[in-house]
Amino acid sequence: MQLVEQMLAGQRFALARVISKVESRGKDLPRIMELVFPRTGKAQILGITGPPGAGKSTLVDRLTAFYRTQGKSVAIVAVDPSSPFSGGAILGDRIRMQQHSSDEGVYIRSLGTRGKQGGLSHATKEVVMVLDAAGFDVVLVETAGVGQTELDILQLAQTVIVILVPESGDSIQIMKAGLLEIADVFVVNKCDRPEADQMARELVNMVALATPTPEDWTIPVQKTEANRNHGVSELMSAIQSHQAYLQFSGEGKKKTLISLEKEITEILIEKLHEKLQASLKTTESQQILSQALEKKIDPYKAANLIYPL
Amino acid sequence: MQLVEQMLAGQRFALARVISKVESRGKDLPRIMELVFPRTGKAQILGITGPPGAGKSTLVDRLTAFYRTQGKSVAIVAVDPSSPFSGGAILGDRIRMQQHSSDEGVYIRSLGTRGKQGGLSHATKEVVMVLDAAGFDVVLVETAGVGQTELDILQLAQTVIVILVPESGDSIQIMKAGLLEIADVFVVNKCDRPEADQMARELVNMVALATPTPEDWTIPVQKTEANRNHGVSELMSAIQSHQAYLQFSGEGKKKTLISLEKEITEILIEKLHEKLQASLKTTESQQILSQALEKKIDPYKAANLIYPL
Repeated sequence: MQLVEQMLAGQRFALARVISKVESRGKDLPRIMELVFPRTGKAQILGITGPPGAGKSTLVDRLTAFYRTQGKSVAIVAVDPSSPFSGGAILGDRIRMQQHSSDEGVYIRSLGTRGKQGGLSHATKEVVMVLDAAGFDVVLVETAGVGQTELDILQLAQTVIVILVPESGDSIQIMKAGLLEIADVFVVNKCDRPEADQMARELVNMVALATPTPEDWTIPVQKTEANRNHGVSELMSAIQSHQAYLQFSGEGKKKTLISLEKEITEILIEKLHEKLQASLKTTESQQILSQALEKKIDPYKAANLIYPL
Repeated sequence: MQLVEQMLAGQRFALARVISKVESRGKDLPRIMELVFPRTGKAQILGITGPPGAGKSTLVDRLTAFYRTQGKSVAIVAVDPSSPFSGGAILGDRIRMQQHSSDEGVYIRSLGTRGKQGGLSHATKEVVMVLDAAGFDVVLVETAGVGQTELDILQLAQTVIVILVPESGDSIQIMKAGLLEIADVFVVNKCDRPEADQMARELVNMVALATPTPEDWTIPVQKTEANRNHGVSELMSAIQSHQAYLQFSGEGKKKTLISLEKEITEILIEKLHEKLQASLKTTESQQILSQALEKKIDPYKAANLIYPL
């Protein structure tokens, strides 16, 4: 585990290799996380999501530049669960992000689907822990924002920024419930478009209707034009306000506990998968499977016989 | 379990209630599936997917009409894991499908996200089993086709039809690997568009390059214009060919075994979730969580202590 020591000492090649190990879910993962975990808890972890074309990467770019002017180091994790229909938008964006590549204070890593369902969300959380332990002040997690996997991934962030663009006004109504559940800050990007004001108003109304008591966090709605760097410093203020709210309200602690419980659940599911894989290969299990194929026993009974929980 | 008996006897209200019970994942699920499972295995189960706007619902509509002319009963399961960004396309399509609503031989059911990740894929598989047991000759499973969840769902189908539309030629290259993994039949819909022939040719080349031996199934590429019912009977032939291939090659049996193993895995994960939920509430677990929050023990150790597997 010299590699982890080197990573914790700030060596970039070691960081890249540790992340690869986390991605490939090898045998040494528990040992890596044992060394990494005590060093976590210092980074500011932000999630950024929105529909394709909303300008997520441009905004990530602007936020990164802003943090750099404050002297903070930034790690960017771009997650693309890459459905065969979604194409490679993030890949292209990453090429553009190369403007930061000569900056030692910025680290960019893309994560894609590695086999099993659920695995990506778990791996992403652990990669963020590694980056936190490696000493980055800010970790930005950008997701393509189309499916359940991405929503699971966003649970690891302290502050989730949902970026929308003014296009179809009525679609907000449809998205409503789900968006309020995940967003801590709303951004209406490309706010030079004529429908931007109306969209922002609708979002403000939606938030007002949904916020039950004055003690709850009121999701701010920030208009930006990321291309021209407009509204970015105001967005930064909104993010800082939310981070302060997490602290004084105790919500931050609650989030950390929920996140830990989820991590434990995911560790156990991954372990169950492994053990079950081995268990299914035994002669006994093969006989049970045969009986189930002949419809002599049903899957629930078969499951109980193969791996009693 | 009188309800299941009524459902198996062909009563529609009982069918709807059994499906709702499967969706809500209640305590009586193992008992329901115990009664349902021995009656499964007769239906032809087709999966239909493709990017938004490819014409999935229209084609499902046409296939349904075709099966009805053969006197076969058809159940349609429309699955929408409804990300907050995806909106309600399937809902709108379902309204159009009401043309079959007076036909006793057609049953339509929509399934959406019910809480937990992974749960939708499992619930969908069991709903398909219920429809199979209820005596439907054909079960068509249509997914919105955007994320990992949908791809998991498609594993339950014997024959997966992937619908594409001629739009961006280069995007096929990007989608390549993933599509070949899931498709048993390709459809190029809206084939009146000028780029249709080129897209079909590219798909044929792609399939030719990927099919290793003459014994393997060669994914056929069928051009359709679902709106005008063009190419639908040819598509039906392609589906029947694949179903015949599954039989004589033994691939059908392999698929059934893989599907059963997946069902068993999902049953166990669901059970683990339940048990873990209870286990996390004990005083002992709360103490372990506190220690993990203080970073005295890492999540892997905590997981082992809370629920040893």
